Amino acid sequence: MIFTTQVSLLATFSRLGACLILLLLTAAFPTLCPARTHLERPPSEPVPETVSPQLKKLLGVYPLCSFWHLTPVTATAWKDLVNKVSVTTAKEARVISEKLKVSVRSASMGHVPVFDLLPSEIAHAHDKRILLHVHGGAYVLNPGISGTSEGSFMAHFGKIRVISVDYRMPPDYPYPAALDDVVSVYRELLKTYPAKSIGVFGSSTGGGLTLALVLKLKELGLPLPAAIAPGSPWSDLNKIGDSYFTHEGLDNSLVTYDYFIKSAAELYAAGHDLKDPLLSPVYGDVTGFPPVMLTSGTRDLFLSNTVRMHLKLREAGVPADLMVFEGMSHVLYMIDPEMPETKLHFSELSKFFDRAFEAH
Amino acid sequence: MIFTTQVSLLATFSRLGACLILLLLTAAFPTLCPARTHLERPPSEPVPETVSPQLKKLLGVYPLCSFWHLTPVTATAWKDLVNKVSVTTAKEARVISEKLKVSVRSASMGHVPVFDLLPSEIAHAHDKRILLHVHGGAYVLNPGISGTSEGSFMAHFGKIRVISVDYRMPPDYPYPAALDDVVSVYRELLKTYPAKSIGVFGSSTGGGLTLALVLKLKELGLPLPAAIAPGSPWSDLNKIGDSYFTHEGLDNSLVTYDYFIKSAAELYAAGHDLKDPLLSPVYGDVTGFPPVMLTSGTRDLFLSNTVRMHLKLREAGVPADLMVFEGMSHVLYMIDPEMPETKLHFSELSKFFDRAFEAH
Repeated sequence: MIFTTQVSLLATFSRLGACLILLLLTAAFPTLCPARTHLERPPSEPVPETVSPQLKKLLGVYPLCSFWHLTPVTATAWKDLVNKVSVTTAKEARVISEKLKVSVRSASMGHVPVFDLLPSEIAHAHDKRILLHVHGGAYVLNPGISGTSEGSFMAHFGKIRVISVDYRMPPDYPYPAALDDVVSVYRELLKTYPAKSIGVFGSSTGGGLTLALVLKLKELGLPLPAAIAPGSPWSDLNKIGDSYFTHEGLDNSLVTYDYFIKSAAELYAAGHDLKDPLLSPVYGDVTGFPPVMLTSGTRDLFLSNTVRMHLKLREAGVPADLMVFEGMSHVLYMIDPEMPETKLHFSELSKFFDRAFEAH
Repeated sequence: MIFTTQVSLLATFSRLGACLILLLLTAAFPTLCPARTHLERPPSEPVPETVSPQLKKLLGVYPLCSFWHLTPVTATAWKDLVNKVSVTTAKEARVISEKLKVSVRSASMGHVPVFDLLPSEIAHAHDKRILLHVHGGAYVLNPGISGTSEGSFMAHFGKIRVISVDYRMPPDYPYPAALDDVVSVYRELLKTYPAKSIGVFGSSTGGGLTLALVLKLKELGLPLPAAIAPGSPWSDLNKIGDSYFTHEGLDNSLVTYDYFIKSAAELYAAGHDLKDPLLSPVYGDVTGFPPVMLTSGTRDLFLSNTVRMHLKLREAGVPADLMVFEGMSHVLYMIDPEMPETKLHFSELSKFFDRAFEAH
């Protein structure tokens, strides 16, 4: 229990640590951070009582991360930010994999660096199945080990091997490098696993890339995976969608589109049209998609990114499941291994993938 | 097309008509209407661009209905309000059933008045199936024909016979009269239809009653229906749940819990504990429930009522589907027959019930 609490607190406070680092960065680059006073205060709405104590604690910190008002301009400034944030998120990822007893091994697939995540127990039915994980972080954060937390959660709760892609990112490698890398790893997996034994998942940017991957596979005429689970996917890189406005300053994880997220979208797109379906999959043709499971929260800045995608999939006749967590801001289900919402999220994802694998 | 537009506009403006009537009522009973200035202005967030033109038009009216700040105290004041609102909602219901070519016949089942709604075409597979409709209206509005609109939509889009219950309501008949009436009609249906050929649906209060019905059937040891579809159910009559706070003044349909809704909850409960599961089903034991489909919107004051119920069902292992409409306030999917969101809602409900019936 003590260890559990430590992990839980560490998961929280390493985020807080990242926030403090960013506050220092803010002080160092004041001209890059045009403060918006009304967003610097916690929302007037009370922290919800209808969530677990662990989630309540996370929701009580505002902002949970200070990325929101940083808008680096130079490549050096971006790299400094990414490197500084990575120090804490990498530690966090290591603590989570240790706590969950998931072994993390560096490898390479299709000339792309990956992490091979093996849980302490693989379910017998999953002997010949695999999940491909695409990490989040606004297309610029979470390189290396720091992008593996969500993959470890899934490996543990799903009792299945997970390959997490350490895809290239801007400023050095803008679009379509990340997508190309995910496609390369998927192609490589196809040499060992039939597509019907592969699932793909990831949250936020990882959710957007998961959806873009399937659009790209359709374009390439490659076999589609058995199922995909984009969590709160960044399906529209433009500030288009109701919750970008209605949940601004309410979501204590992302806070707003207007600063960090907008800058990151532009950095990744590097001049490409943000409405290109491979950048913003909500504009893509989703007919023929495999079963999809989406997750969001009632405070998520990306709630509209999630439900617009969900409605589009349903309209196209794709079996698309949706779960919206009470009171939750953007992807808070992958921080605390002991949080009931974390367990529910990953156990529902496991059931979803199991059903999809068994249907074949 | 002209007729279509007229119906669509009439559906909108009859609501506006009801609002004007209520503004006059407000003027007549100023002490009953403690105005909250900040809720009298439209929200600062823009009307979403990511919805249909029809929904955009509905969302552009603030408030869509002025029920929100009325808090009648005497039985007479309640009845006056209900009667005045019914004049327009009854007209609206008649226009909708005519437009959709649904025949509406008054009848009685188990000594309870009902409306027997027959679409112009019943799908062959539905010859021996039936849907039970439980109307909404805060447990006090929509008596008689005025409660049938949603039932007509479902009969039309589902090509299935619908029985809509005209249950008793306060001030004369508080809890448990409404629930008793729904149970009576269900018992009567069981004499003709096996439970596996019966589905139950309804929105808002109708959603809460649909859930309470299943809890009550479990208690009584009666067979459960094949499936239920509570739309944005009033699953917690207390002001408990995140979106009661976060969507206050954003939802242009309900606006806030604090005035009309709170008064209506107390009127219906008549001194019973609002946490009684038959009043607030989110506190009930949902194990063994049949498949459930829930609907809400990103601006819905009852989004948390919906997702809390959804999560509870999933945790209990009940197959529970969820659809959240982009930008939508409380149950705006049952006003305009031409609105794409209306069509999607009822066609998804049809598919859901079809799957459930076929599974037996």
